[in-house]
Parts: sequence; structure tokens; C-alpha cells
Amino acid sequence: MNTVPLLATTSIEAEIAPFVIAGVLLSLVAIYIASKLGSELSFRLGFPPVLGELLAGVVVGVSALHLVVFPSETVTAKDSLVMAFLQWSDAVPAELLPEVFASVSEVLSVAAELGVIVLLFEIGLESNLGELLRVGLQAVLVAVVGVVVPFAAGAVGAVYLFDVDVITAIFVGAALTATSIGITSKVLSELGQLTSKEGQIILGAAVVDDVIGIVILAVVASLSKTGQVEAAGVLSLIASAVGFTVGAIAAGTVINRLFLSVSDWLKTRGGLIVPAFVLSFILAYIGIVARLEAILGSFAAGLLLDETDQKEDLEAQVKPVADLLVPIFFVVVGARTDVGVLNPFVPENREGLIIASFLLLVAIAGKVATGLAIFGPEKVNRLAVGIGMIPRGEVGLVFAAVGSATGVLTPALNAAVIVMVIVTTFLAPPLLRFCFPLEAPAEAAIKS
Amino acid sequence: MNTVPLLATTSIEAEIAPFVIAGVLLSLVAIYIASKLGSELSFRLGFPPVLGELLAGVVVGVSALHLVVFPSETVTAKDSLVMAFLQWSDAVPAELLPEVFASVSEVLSVAAELGVIVLLFEIGLESNLGELLRVGLQAVLVAVVGVVVPFAAGAVGAVYLFDVDVITAIFVGAALTATSIGITSKVLSELGQLTSKEGQIILGAAVVDDVIGIVILAVVASLSKTGQVEAAGVLSLIASAVGFTVGAIAAGTVINRLFLSVSDWLKTRGGLIVPAFVLSFILAYIGIVARLEAILGSFAAGLLLDETDQKEDLEAQVKPVADLLVPIFFVVVGARTDVGVLNPFVPENREGLIIASFLLLVAIAGKVATGLAIFGPEKVNRLAVGIGMIPRGEVGLVFAAVGSATGVLTPALNAAVIVMVIVTTFLAPPLLRFCFPLEAPAEAAIKS
Repeated sequence: MNTVPLLATTSIEAEIAPFVIAGVLLSLVAIYIASKLGSELSFRLGFPPVLGELLAGVVVGVSALHLVVFPSETVTAKDSLVMAFLQWSDAVPAELLPEVFASVSEVLSVAAELGVIVLLFEIGLESNLGELLRVGLQAVLVAVVGVVVPFAAGAVGAVYLFDVDVITAIFVGAALTATSIGITSKVLSELGQLTSKEGQIILGAAVVDDVIGIVILAVVASLSKTGQVEAAGVLSLIASAVGFTVGAIAAGTVINRLFLSVSDWLKTRGGLIVPAFVLSFILAYIGIVARLEAILGSFAAGLLLDETDQKEDLEAQVKPVADLLVPIFFVVVGARTDVGVLNPFVPENREGLIIASFLLLVAIAGKVATGLAIFGPEKVNRLAVGIGMIPRGEVGLVFAAVGSATGVLTPALNAAVIVMVIVTTFLAPPLLRFCFPLEAPAEAAIKS
Repeated sequence: MNTVPLLATTSIEAEIAPFVIAGVLLSLVAIYIASKLGSELSFRLGFPPVLGELLAGVVVGVSALHLVVFPSETVTAKDSLVMAFLQWSDAVPAELLPEVFASVSEVLSVAAELGVIVLLFEIGLESNLGELLRVGLQAVLVAVVGVVVPFAAGAVGAVYLFDVDVITAIFVGAALTATSIGITSKVLSELGQLTSKEGQIILGAAVVDDVIGIVILAVVASLSKTGQVEAAGVLSLIASAVGFTVGAIAAGTVINRLFLSVSDWLKTRGGLIVPAFVLSFILAYIGIVARLEAILGSFAAGLLLDETDQKEDLEAQVKPVADLLVPIFFVVVGARTDVGVLNPFVPENREGLIIASFLLLVAIAGKVATGLAIFGPEKVNRLAVGIGMIPRGEVGLVFAAVGSATGVLTPALNAAVIVMVIVTTFLAPPLLRFCFPLEAPAEAAIKS
């Protein structure tokens, strides 16, 4: 039968579609207003704007205003102020609110994910592949030191100070390893330090670090499930990481030429930015399929397009897209963060906070130590490199989630890991700001 | 308890999140490649690029390749090539495919909706409020003639030629009334005719037309449900339409000044485009709450910002965002269109096709007649105005869906309405192209 009407599906999707768009529009308005208030205040106080976006996210999120919240065991549609407003303004019937809340949250999660993908694409465009390869060895060394020191100190300390079993201690140590590329690269960009030698070392090390972190996660996850390391899975992961990197660099020239001739052939609107995003999305997809991360793919795409003639045009066109998508990522990261675990007046938090103080010490000292790994005759701001590696961000939270789900982490240990992630994430931007000589506000942070 | 890990929700949303982003990336790649192939071919053959995007959507959609499809009674995850590829490339476990398919489709629907919202915002920016008000009376006349003639001819013809009852005939007539603002404005923009007198009349008439169409839909929907017109509901709808228009114009100067001082105060990145989108999204939301349409709100936002000093900067920044979002809308419109109803070799289609020929005649003649309503001393291309009003697009499909769901339209009548919408939508771009003198390809269609 071809007479089924195009839009008359009886599925719940079709029924709630007009309400979902209303919820998305309202959520985006809340996110944008929060992000602008936060970034402007932060900027005027002399801090990187992204710090303000993260904090604004905390204010509108699950910790405070409940404007931007996501479904969980403790949060339903009733807890969302945006949903309440939708209902009050008669935009959504009450009985559809749970479905609409789920769909709006899904869309915002994807938008946030696209935000960090576009951020890393832009960072890749701003970076220089040659320069990155030139500091490659230093970056690898910094990454390895920044993984080994916090891992060892964290695991040993957990066993001796807090008397946990070995597998749990390994898990805690592992959660201390991976630097957040997104936060570190954004802060560097805002400080105008992305293309400095320190910036390139940090960026390169953060990327290597991220890949090592993914491998470690696979190791400890299989260890915590079966008590043994599933060698085949880990080896295939390492192989795909190496294959991805080598493949991207090897295919670089071909991809670049293909991109140039395609964008040259295209005469209609969007003839530059659309193929650029197609490349970015394809590599991001390959990043996912390779069991790595989407952001590694889009970062590679940005790096590869770096050498093209239309680079300036492309950067100018990516900028407004990034301006609209990237804040969604940072506000959502803040909004998902429950800073309630930081409250020492809640008795259940205390054990976690004591462990957290120890983890925090290891997390900061272990990364600051990476500065010592830098060699060579050139003068490098070692402290800045170490501090640039501090923010743990989302990868640490994944460790916490997996550890809690598999029962390896007790509630107190789990909370301690979360506190460590929160504090390192929010501490790094202001600290980094003071590591670099005070100049005029970096161009990259200012609107054009 | 504050120790619930941030990401360890047991909800299905959290479980499928990483797979949804993979599906969205892959779908967007398919949509972008299709849209570029379509728009370039169309442009090189001398047609507006958007025609190619719509046709490319048909090719990748439910009618042919099944790359971009949406869940319905007849389409499940198994019918989607993108889902098959996700499974084949091992990006999604088979048992999660239906959930992932639903979520990816939801995200694409919202992205398409945001696409047409951004399109109308851009069209609003390109238009001039003063000029639009100057042709206002002409536009209203064109709109009214373009509603009355097809409605009367369609309803009367349905009764006398096809022997349907009165309420059904009214429904069929109503489905013939509303012009698609999205398609018409995009074609005008691509032909460089948006700011011509003809273009402004068409645009103004399409907006008025759309509002009348929404009121008519409310009337016939209540008529078909209860056999009576629910006067209170219809009056409140008319009041909100009038209120929205008057309110937007009255608040225009205040909004404009507020926008200028806000964007002036903002010093960090995105200080121009973010407040512009906040305004656009707020008005779009009000458009929905007023039971009108989101696109009317974003069009109003674009019109109001038209007079600002930073207009050129803003247009340059909106362009790449539109280049990425708008094609999603047109490809999705094409992809959702099942052109199978056009196949005369399927016996069940024949009755519908015969009725469709009649509806099509009324739909085209009724809108071409609107050119006759134009008065005044100035020379206006009457045929161009009439043809510009032809495409019915999504509003016609909503009539078909409501008519079919309430049982007012038989399958044959329903199919006939869909055929009428498809043919008018795809016919208008090439016809419009021949109505305006052949110039060099319009700047608006070409990449910068």
C-alpha cells in the first residue's frame, strides 16, 4: 500500500515531535544565556571564558537551578524547570512530558557531543601537524609520565592508606590517568597559547594520554569483571589506535588533495564548509568504529585540512558554528556535574572527601611532575605543561561510572573519584592562566 | 544520596548514547553528500539548487535508497541502510538497533526543524521590514485570493466530480490553500529575487497564507471531529496570530535596541551570533506557544534585526550555520516523501492519481490567478507572483495526515492530496526559474 500518509505515523515519535522542538528551543536559550553570562564574567575577572561556561552549567544544572537536567534514577521530567515551563506555557500536555523530556535530553546530549567534535575539529585546524610531530617525542614522554606517576601513586596510596584490595586500587589509579582534551585545548586556545611550544606539547600529550586512558580502561574493566586481562581485546585496541594514527598521517596528502578538488568543484552555497564537515564526521565515525573516540577523528580531520589554501576561509566559517555548538558541550558538562558531593556538612560525603583530598594531591602532583620529562636545549615553561595536563574531565567520570556499575568502587571511592574530576577540571583553567605571562587578552577569546 | 555516579544511570538513554552519535554522524554524512550532489547538478542544469536537494532527498529516502528513513508503520530499523551499516561496521550491537534508530531519527527531525527555523531567520535578515510593509496590502490580497480560489474550486469540484460529502470536500479544499514558505523563500533567494518587488509580495503573501492555513486547519479539524466549528478555539487562534504580528512589530524597536546593547556588551567569542540565535529561538518558541509556527517567530526575529548596524557581520556568520542546517531540512523533506504514490502501474494508485490530476489543476490555476489581484501603477511580474505561491510543501502534508487520522479522507483522497503536494513542490522551482529574466547565476546561490 502506498497510501499510508507521510506524516500520519501512529508512533509516539510523531505525536511528540512538535513538543520536542519547543523543549529544545527553550533549553538552548537557557544554555546560551548561561554560557554568555558565565563566559563574560569569567573573562572580565581575568579567567578563561570556558571556566565561566562550566560554572554557569553547574548553576543551571542538577546542582542548583535544574534548568538543564538529564533523566537519571533521581531526576525525572518533574525535576526539570524547562519541562515545568513548557507545561505552564501550555506548549506540552502533561501526560507527554516524560517522553518529551527524554527526547529533548537525547537531542541536547547529541548536540553537546557534536559540540566537542566541532571544538576538536577547530583545534585541529588551528594546530599545525608539522609542529605537533616535531614535539611528538616530548609529548609522548609527558603523556607516559603523566599516566605512570598518578597511576602508581594512586594505586599504592589506596592500598596502604585506605586498605582497599588490589583490583580496586588499580581502578582508582587508572581513573587518575587521562587528561581531558576538550577543556585543556579550549583553555589554551583562549589564552592564545595553542600554537606555542608548551601548547603543542600539552595538546599532543593530551591526545596520547587519551588513547592510553582508553586502553587502560579496557584493561581494568576486563580485570574487574573476570579478574584477568583479556589480552586479545586489549591488543586489538592498541592495534586500532596505532592503525588509526598511522592511517590518518599516511592518507593525509591524498585526503587533502581530494578535499581541495571537491571543494573546488562545488559552486553552490556551503561548498567549503560542507565537505569539511563531511570529512570531519567521517573521521569521527572511524574514531568510534576503531573503539577510540569521535573527537580524535575530528581532531585528525582538522589537522589534515590545516595545510589547505582555503584555510583562512574555512576557519572563518567554522567559527560561528563552533560558537553555537561548543558552549552546549561545556554547559552540559557543568550541568551534569552534581557538586553536592563536595558538601562536607553531609555526613555521608566525609569519607569520600578524605579519600578525595588524597586523590587530588596525587592527581595534581602527578601531572605537574610531567614537566620534568621535558628535555632538549629549548627553554620550555615546564610548570605550564604540567598544569595543562591537570584537568581530568569526562574520561575520569567514565571510570567512575564503570567502577560503580561493576561494583569495584564503593560509594565513598566513587564519590572521591568524582570530586577529584570536578576539582581538577575547574582548577586547571585559572591555574593555567597564571602560568603564562600576562598579555593583552588573547585574540582567540575575543569576538570578531 | 549524593554518591550516585554522574554517568552511571541505568536508563536506556545512557546505554545507547555512544551509538546514537555514531548514527547521527553517518546520517549527516549521507545527507550532506546527497544535498551537495543534488544542488550542484541542479545548479549546473540551470535550476535552483534547492530542487536538487529535494530530489536528492527522494533518492536517499524512503522511495529509493533507504539511507535516510524515519520510523513508521512500514519502516523499522531493519529498513534503514544507515542502521545496517552501523551494525555491519560493528558500531552498534544488533539488539539496540531499534532504540538507536528511534533516537537518531528524533535527532535528525529536530535538526531538520532547526534547519527551517534558521532558514527563515536568514530570509528575515535578507528581507526588509519597510519594503515588506509597503507591499503589505498587495501581499494580503494575493494571499486571500490564493486561499479562496483553490479552496472554493477544490471543494466544489470534489463534491460534483467525485461525489464526496461536504465535510470531506471542505477538507480537500482546505488542503489546497497553504503555500510552503520554506521552499518558496529559498528558491527566491537562490534566484536573487528575494528583495525584488515580486519576491517581497510572494514572501509576505506566503506568510499571511501560512497563518490563514493554520486557522483553516483548526476550523476543519474541529469540523471533522464534531461536525461543528469550535468558535472559541478558532477565535483565540486568530487573536494570537494578530497579537503575535502586532506584538512583534510594536516591540521591534525595543528588541532591536536591547539586542544592540547586549551584543555590544559581550566581548567573548560568539558575542554577535549567540544573542541573535537566542532572540530567534525565543520568538520561535513564542510562535509555537501562540499555536502558530516556529518559523514565523524566527522570520520575525530576522526581520527585526534587519535594521541593525552589525547586519553584514551577522549575515556572514549566519551563512555557514545555515549552510550546515538548511540542507538537512530539504533532504529530510525529500526523504520522507514516498513518490511510490505517483506510480500509475500500481492499480491502487489509479483512483488517487485521477483525483490528483484535478487537485493539481486547481492548485496551480488557483495560485496563478493570484497574480490578477495585484494592483497599482508599478509594473509587476504577475505570473511570477502566482507561480511563486504554488509550492504546498509541509502544510499540505499536515492536512493529509490529520484528514487520514480522523478518517475524513479516504485512502484515495489522501493519496491525491499527497501527490498534489509533491508535484507542486517539485514543479515550482523550475517554473519560477523561467519566470524571471535569465541573468548571471544569482549571487545568493553561489558559495563565497
